[in-house]
Amino acid sequence: MNNAVTPSTDLPAKADFPDLQRFFAPQSFALVGATEDATKFGGRALLLLQDFGYAGRIYPVNPRGGTIRGMTAYASVRDLPEAPDHVGIVVAADRVLGVLEDCAARGAKFATVLTSGFIETGTEQGAAMQAQLSAFSRRTGVRVMGPNCNGFINFVDNVIFASTATVSGPRRPTGYVSVASQSGGLGMVNAMWRAQDAGLGVNHVATCGNDADLDILDFANFMVEDAATRVVMLIIERVPNGPKLFALARKAAKAGKPLLAVKLGRTEEGRRAAASHTGAMSGSDAVHDAAFRQAGVIRCADCNEMYETGMLLGSGRVPAGRGASSLSISGGNVVMLTDLGALHGIAWPQYDEATQKALGALMPSYGRVSNPTDLTTAAMASVDMYQKVLDAIAADPHVDVMIPIVTFGTKADIDYTIEAAKRSTKPFALLWSGACIDRPELAPRDVVRAGMPVYRDVLECVRAVGRAMDYGEFLRREREAPAPSRPAGTHGEQARAVLRDSGRQLTEQQSKAVLAAYGIRITQERLAKSAAEASALVAALGAPAAMKIASPDIAHKTEAGGVRLNVAADAAATCYEEIVGNARRYSADARIDGVLIQEMARPGLELMLGVSRDPVFGPIVVAALGGIHVEVLGDVSYRVAPVSCDEALRMLNELRGRRILEGVRGAARCDIDALCDAIARLSWLAVDLADDIAEVDINPLRVYEQGSGVLALDGLIVRSTPAAD
Amino acid sequence: MNNAVTPSTDLPAKADFPDLQRFFAPQSFALVGATEDATKFGGRALLLLQDFGYAGRIYPVNPRGGTIRGMTAYASVRDLPEAPDHVGIVVAADRVLGVLEDCAARGAKFATVLTSGFIETGTEQGAAMQAQLSAFSRRTGVRVMGPNCNGFINFVDNVIFASTATVSGPRRPTGYVSVASQSGGLGMVNAMWRAQDAGLGVNHVATCGNDADLDILDFANFMVEDAATRVVMLIIERVPNGPKLFALARKAAKAGKPLLAVKLGRTEEGRRAAASHTGAMSGSDAVHDAAFRQAGVIRCADCNEMYETGMLLGSGRVPAGRGASSLSISGGNVVMLTDLGALHGIAWPQYDEATQKALGALMPSYGRVSNPTDLTTAAMASVDMYQKVLDAIAADPHVDVMIPIVTFGTKADIDYTIEAAKRSTKPFALLWSGACIDRPELAPRDVVRAGMPVYRDVLECVRAVGRAMDYGEFLRREREAPAPSRPAGTHGEQARAVLRDSGRQLTEQQSKAVLAAYGIRITQERLAKSAAEASALVAALGAPAAMKIASPDIAHKTEAGGVRLNVAADAAATCYEEIVGNARRYSADARIDGVLIQEMARPGLELMLGVSRDPVFGPIVVAALGGIHVEVLGDVSYRVAPVSCDEALRMLNELRGRRILEGVRGAARCDIDALCDAIARLSWLAVDLADDIAEVDINPLRVYEQGSGVLALDGLIVRSTPAAD
Repeated sequence: MNNAVTPSTDLPAKADFPDLQRFFAPQSFALVGATEDATKFGGRALLLLQDFGYAGRIYPVNPRGGTIRGMTAYASVRDLPEAPDHVGIVVAADRVLGVLEDCAARGAKFATVLTSGFIETGTEQGAAMQAQLSAFSRRTGVRVMGPNCNGFINFVDNVIFASTATVSGPRRPTGYVSVASQSGGLGMVNAMWRAQDAGLGVNHVATCGNDADLDILDFANFMVEDAATRVVMLIIERVPNGPKLFALARKAAKAGKPLLAVKLGRTEEGRRAAASHTGAMSGSDAVHDAAFRQAGVIRCADCNEMYETGMLLGSGRVPAGRGASSLSISGGNVVMLTDLGALHGIAWPQYDEATQKALGALMPSYGRVSNPTDLTTAAMASVDMYQKVLDAIAADPHVDVMIPIVTFGTKADIDYTIEAAKRSTKPFALLWSGACIDRPELAPRDVVRAGMPVYRDVLECVRAVGRAMDYGEFLRREREAPAPSRPAGTHGEQARAVLRDSGRQLTEQQSKAVLAAYGIRITQERLAKSAAEASALVAALGAPAAMKIASPDIAHKTEAGGVRLNVAADAAATCYEEIVGNARRYSADARIDGVLIQEMARPGLELMLGVSRDPVFGPIVVAALGGIHVEVLGDVSYRVAPVSCDEALRMLNELRGRRILEGVRGAARCDIDALCDAIARLSWLAVDLADDIAEVDINPLRVYEQGSGVLALDGLIVRSTPAAD
Repeated sequence: MNNAVTPSTDLPAKADFPDLQRFFAPQSFALVGATEDATKFGGRALLLLQDFGYAGRIYPVNPRGGTIRGMTAYASVRDLPEAPDHVGIVVAADRVLGVLEDCAARGAKFATVLTSGFIETGTEQGAAMQAQLSAFSRRTGVRVMGPNCNGFINFVDNVIFASTATVSGPRRPTGYVSVASQSGGLGMVNAMWRAQDAGLGVNHVATCGNDADLDILDFANFMVEDAATRVVMLIIERVPNGPKLFALARKAAKAGKPLLAVKLGRTEEGRRAAASHTGAMSGSDAVHDAAFRQAGVIRCADCNEMYETGMLLGSGRVPAGRGASSLSISGGNVVMLTDLGALHGIAWPQYDEATQKALGALMPSYGRVSNPTDLTTAAMASVDMYQKVLDAIAADPHVDVMIPIVTFGTKADIDYTIEAAKRSTKPFALLWSGACIDRPELAPRDVVRAGMPVYRDVLECVRAVGRAMDYGEFLRREREAPAPSRPAGTHGEQARAVLRDSGRQLTEQQSKAVLAAYGIRITQERLAKSAAEASALVAALGAPAAMKIASPDIAHKTEAGGVRLNVAADAAATCYEEIVGNARRYSADARIDGVLIQEMARPGLELMLGVSRDPVFGPIVVAALGGIHVEVLGDVSYRVAPVSCDEALRMLNELRGRRILEGVRGAARCDIDALCDAIARLSWLAVDLADDIAEVDINPLRVYEQGSGVLALDGLIVRSTPAAD
């Protein structure tokens, strides 16, 4: 299913998000499929809802009527004494639509369908049933979660509609995390329960399955709007709508609430497995990865990584830079943290003079103290050395994140660390690899509950800190320049005029005319319609020219003998005849417009720029160094259009071969500014003409030395609309 | 410090490992620095030793004599009533050597020095004191661990000499893991205690600090020899001796006992931090990485990863291939495992017909069942569906590793999984992301103690399984071909004859003569000493030639105007005079041997092969594609010499640009066999001449199409010995 929305304005479509207040906190809840029998889904779900302390009105619905768990059971939703806010549905798949019609008839606002047997079956029937369900919502305005889902939990207002073992035992406290997941198991177990087990409080959980109507982004939007939620964790099997994700991400960024995401489908194997699980293939993982980075969505490999990162960002404090500091009596831990930290983009700035002075007074024999700070076992002799050094270095202005290390530590040191974090405005992350000496029963989760993120070993710690730093950079960017602005001199109408006259595949000349309309420099060229005209045009260029057959019917010009390079003025006429002759022999029926006379571009670094259409995110801009970089090394950078010049630069900086742009092996530095400008212009072309253009390929784009710009040597545009001819 | 041993035989030196039985299990133990005062190191260490249940004889040593904790204290080791097996030393740094002399005088076998203040201080004095300590051991034969270390623990025989809080509380059971670490904190806390906390039993732990005499590899060797130990975990700040590591690894492979290693110093920042911690910089991380892979040492990022991998390999079962299978009622978990598994080299083979038949009987409505198997929540209706499907797929012959997934599961399902693993011969890894429904207090560590590796989320699981599969591949390779064999036609004496006549930097002709002596094809070339000779030699080649100035004093031949390409026979005489003239003008004093007449090699893919000398591992062979691949992309592959052709192929397969060798963009497939042969030959050259050669650079090596071999176009050898001239 291609849910992509084509943005028709300058910015990706602003999505309208539904108000889900009554979804998560209904004043009345009907359960269709309710039963006394707790071995059945409907029985367990009812039991859970009652046990959870739901304070609203519960209406069990069962065709047999009677009473269920002491409550009057209704034969149909139509019979309910009021219009229910939310109806939970656990009937057989073929009965779901009928029940939904009852819901609409009785004026229900929301429904959640746990039942499976829809598009995820891979059958035509399943797909058709799901389409009916989507159509039902559009028609009636009853908003539906599911089908094939595991429901939702609202820990704040004590509402649950699910069948899960994860909420048994003592009630877990709420906190700052909410979870939206297409998968029930991952959402409720690997993410929610594990986060709670690690000491985090969870507010809202939605596991939404097939997203036939309401989708994961709608639920995430509710969580971003929820005042108590500071971190939203997403588990995504397929992004329902790229522009909507961007709209959500922009809203989350404005609120300073990070979106963390596990996105499945990194491999072909994973995409196939996801397809058989939920009935939808997701698009290119490289594009998802780029889009997430662009939108500031923090991508994690699995749920552990997600709550470990969420723990740090849940403080609401965002690192102001990439500088961190640490201290420990374990030199080995200091070395490992320094080492893996550097690998994850963490800098270890030198302490400033004031800090050094303070440390000098504390540790007179150490000389200049380095960061991270190895207290050595000498510190074990001094009861409060750790605490004093912690205060000194946490105050250093170059330190953005504080990562104290405790191996086996005292309760006093751990408590002091928690208090120091509260006094500070900087994020703290505690690397605690051991236990508490004088309170062995103190568990990491107890410290997490006290507000301090705890990591048990170095890798998980630096991964979380590095990601939090990335997020800080993203937020600062987003606040400075929330949306790319359109460069001067993009002439959409001029481009559309060219498109109106062209077939499905534009000629080189037409393609370049479209690029030129967006201010991308192209080789100077004119069409010669006769040998004499060719002579005159080459002479006018004042230099040898390239001559190429111009025909809408000949795509492979070289193969047709239709290309000559370095033609001097006096040879141009003969050359014209040769090229046209070759083309006639190659294809007798080809319409021949003449021969294109082009300036011979001087050598330069060759790149490939392009536009393609992603089924999820819409128009995508692509950049790569030419030749083996694309074809063998797959060293390609993607962004969702449009992009600013700054974003284009970040895009280039993601290329493994980026140093080539700086000039290597004796070459001069390239005009990177001009290159970024060309990428930005191409991205606006992609957005403006998204309804007409499927693909743009500029290959090669020559990039010259600083100040000398870029030049598109060849261009090919393919339209998405059927050709007029 | 360069501890590298130059191997003089065909294989890296066989290291002699000391017998450390009495080190770890001494019948008598003296503690110098013993005191009643438990706030002091010496007091804590004594207390620990007593509390640990040590059954041998303890001798406290303290200059004040008297009694300590009810035992007679001796003023000096010299006064002890017997020669102690092991002496623990916790006196001030300046007293350590004196105490060691006492140990030697009294006939002690081993000593462990916890005291710091040696080479790790970065001072000359510290380095000198450590050198005295090393010299002491060589002179007296008393083997010493440390200084600057945190001692050892023998959980099997109840011996401890350390100052650590990690062993307080109930005694942890022994098991199959042992730990050797240069860092005390990482070794005892992040590795040992965390592994125990996760349910693993630990036998022996050595934290050896500065390795002044006995080094981490000696301790690891003891652990490999220990019958109960099946997995050795190493935490390495610097590898003391590369060939010794290889000798240890070979022994471990023979015993089927994996070595797992955290090696610090992946970044420059980490290497600097390590240097200030232990006083020694370690060499190139890329070389360490390659050497570990080559030796089958499983490198982990941190200690978590190490024990998570150790858990799986500790079963003693090694995956027979890369095929895995899984099952779950959580489709999301199945998708995530499939996805991240594929990313970590795990294959998900189709079940064979017999398995499909068995599954068809169990799950009639599923059609063909895919691997991993999504039981769907339908399975929750059937009490033993999980168990029956587990049995069916675990028996499939294509499945090498079984990864059952439990989210919230019953005690019965978990117990059944443990039993199924015991019945099977395949390794099992349980991905258990939740809790036990009917026994909520059941912790993952309880299941680990029952012999089943448990992973809490997907990433840690697939990382461990992927590494275990890598190890299986390594072991099979190692058993088929334990050591590379020398190719025919390597003429060391012929090469040495060239070296005898050469200066520190060999001329191109000399360098190529050495390469030719090892069977590496070089361009045909002869030295012309006159214009007439040049004419005759070019004519004899029968094709245009390259002509290059031959002078031991001119390294930059092109810069000197000393190179002409594509010279025809009739132009050779004039060219000779020009080249010699240019050279004279370039450098009046240069000795000129004549002009080298070379065949002009036809075009081909260009690679760079080289040899360099690693301070830890000795001669290293290097391969890369030419040009930007080396200089910009850093796409370089390393191995410790010598290598077999198979190892050379694995080396090439590590290049990101490897597909270029297969032929891309219209090029033919390269002669990869010939390329591997050339790498193997070069590696033997590196080993044979390691005492004389510092560096070899073949750049470019042309590689031709399949069957047409390789050709060294240029070669440069630099000797390590001072030039004779």
